[in-house]
Amino acid sequence: MKSAPLVLITNDDGITAPGIAHLVSIARQLGDVFIVAPDKPQSGMGHAITINSTLRVHKTAYYGGTNEYSCSGTPVDCVKIAINKLVPRKPDLILSGINHGSNLSINVIYSGTMSAAVEGAVEGIPSIGFSLCDYAHEADFTQASPFLQRIIKNTIENSLKKGVCLNVNIPKLKEDEIKGIKICRQADSMWVEEFDERSDPYGRPYYWLTGEFKNLEPEAKDTDVWANDNGYISIVPIHADMTATVAMNDLKNQFAND
Amino acid sequence: MKSAPLVLITNDDGITAPGIAHLVSIARQLGDVFIVAPDKPQSGMGHAITINSTLRVHKTAYYGGTNEYSCSGTPVDCVKIAINKLVPRKPDLILSGINHGSNLSINVIYSGTMSAAVEGAVEGIPSIGFSLCDYAHEADFTQASPFLQRIIKNTIENSLKKGVCLNVNIPKLKEDEIKGIKICRQADSMWVEEFDERSDPYGRPYYWLTGEFKNLEPEAKDTDVWANDNGYISIVPIHADMTATVAMNDLKNQFAND
Repeated sequence: MKSAPLVLITNDDGITAPGIAHLVSIARQLGDVFIVAPDKPQSGMGHAITINSTLRVHKTAYYGGTNEYSCSGTPVDCVKIAINKLVPRKPDLILSGINHGSNLSINVIYSGTMSAAVEGAVEGIPSIGFSLCDYAHEADFTQASPFLQRIIKNTIENSLKKGVCLNVNIPKLKEDEIKGIKICRQADSMWVEEFDERSDPYGRPYYWLTGEFKNLEPEAKDTDVWANDNGYISIVPIHADMTATVAMNDLKNQFAND
Repeated sequence: MKSAPLVLITNDDGITAPGIAHLVSIARQLGDVFIVAPDKPQSGMGHAITINSTLRVHKTAYYGGTNEYSCSGTPVDCVKIAINKLVPRKPDLILSGINHGSNLSINVIYSGTMSAAVEGAVEGIPSIGFSLCDYAHEADFTQASPFLQRIIKNTIENSLKKGVCLNVNIPKLKEDEIKGIKICRQADSMWVEEFDERSDPYGRPYYWLTGEFKNLEPEAKDTDVWANDNGYISIVPIHADMTATVAMNDLKNQFAND
């Protein structure tokens, strides 16, 4: 008999976040679960790794006390140290999330949740990052469960192309309002920043980074932003290759004499 | 008369690093320079942004005292706050680096230097990240100066496609040993980690992340790693779109009924 798949789970909201708890409960129905997640919130950490300081790992008991660890580092650190130091064998699958809040489009580069999935893909392991478009701590993660199970099962059965992970975003809808799953490309988008300038008690200025998400191609119907806005769970296949092939020819012409 | 281009300069090694000092000296020959760089080393911060704490900005006097600021945040924070709060007008060009150490290939996702350039591209500004393949503090940044001037001048004259930045890596060679400039794609590569496990004075374990860079396609001659290994300065055009188009059809078939 084939043994159950080993599923490594991480996130960026921290090991005690409701989103990861829900992902653990789904994954336990599908395989052997191993959890290595940040010991504190690590949102917005992107693909940061800890090289100027040390890492700590602690056994935890949030999920029954077996195969679960918190790590002092970033989501990417969690994946690296899990694979290299903690898991009994190479995981068959890495799941990251469920993030409290959207990771649509450009957010893939800022998101610790998605960076953990990208790192998994780089390590040659099929990986999926899940995000629910609801920032609330008490967000309802149960509505999309049947869809998430299908996406995870499909990945276990069909695997993913080498180096590819999935960016899955779930609209904030009831189960019967979710129209289905759409395979999409990453929308062209950006954050329009507005730094909130304040004064500390000593009269010195400091800033909070805030901003507004802007979809730069609202008419395009093949993007993840469109899919989510229109009631679909979006899946974007993601890889770490950031080469802008579109710019290659111009540059080759400009440096043709080298 | 057309005014001189406004060149925003940042890095990830911190505002006092020799690499950024050299970049400032090159850029001052080509335009008006505005510096906003981290107040401490931020290597390996990837595309991290500061959302769980506040940002500070201080005027500095390392480069003459005009138009130079240190920022408490990451390289990406530096670009965001520079554009939104500090510069007198939208920069014509963003330069990041010169990094002390290679940012070839997969390092584009871990590198604060390159993430600053990617952020610039997302904001619609032609951006270049420079890295010298020499980690030493006393690395010789002067050897490649004529090449860097050409690359910067070319970008000012021809601009870059919207959303595209350049990842420039300079081999550790004397000026007359550098064979030229090659336009490349990002090599498929990874880090093979080996966590260095140590014990603190109380007997508790902690870890240092270390590892070895592995080019997964050493035979391919169109990659940045090959170019650098063979004496060329490599330029890879980079964008923030991480969609793995190669995986799209399989996934569409697997979820065809949605």
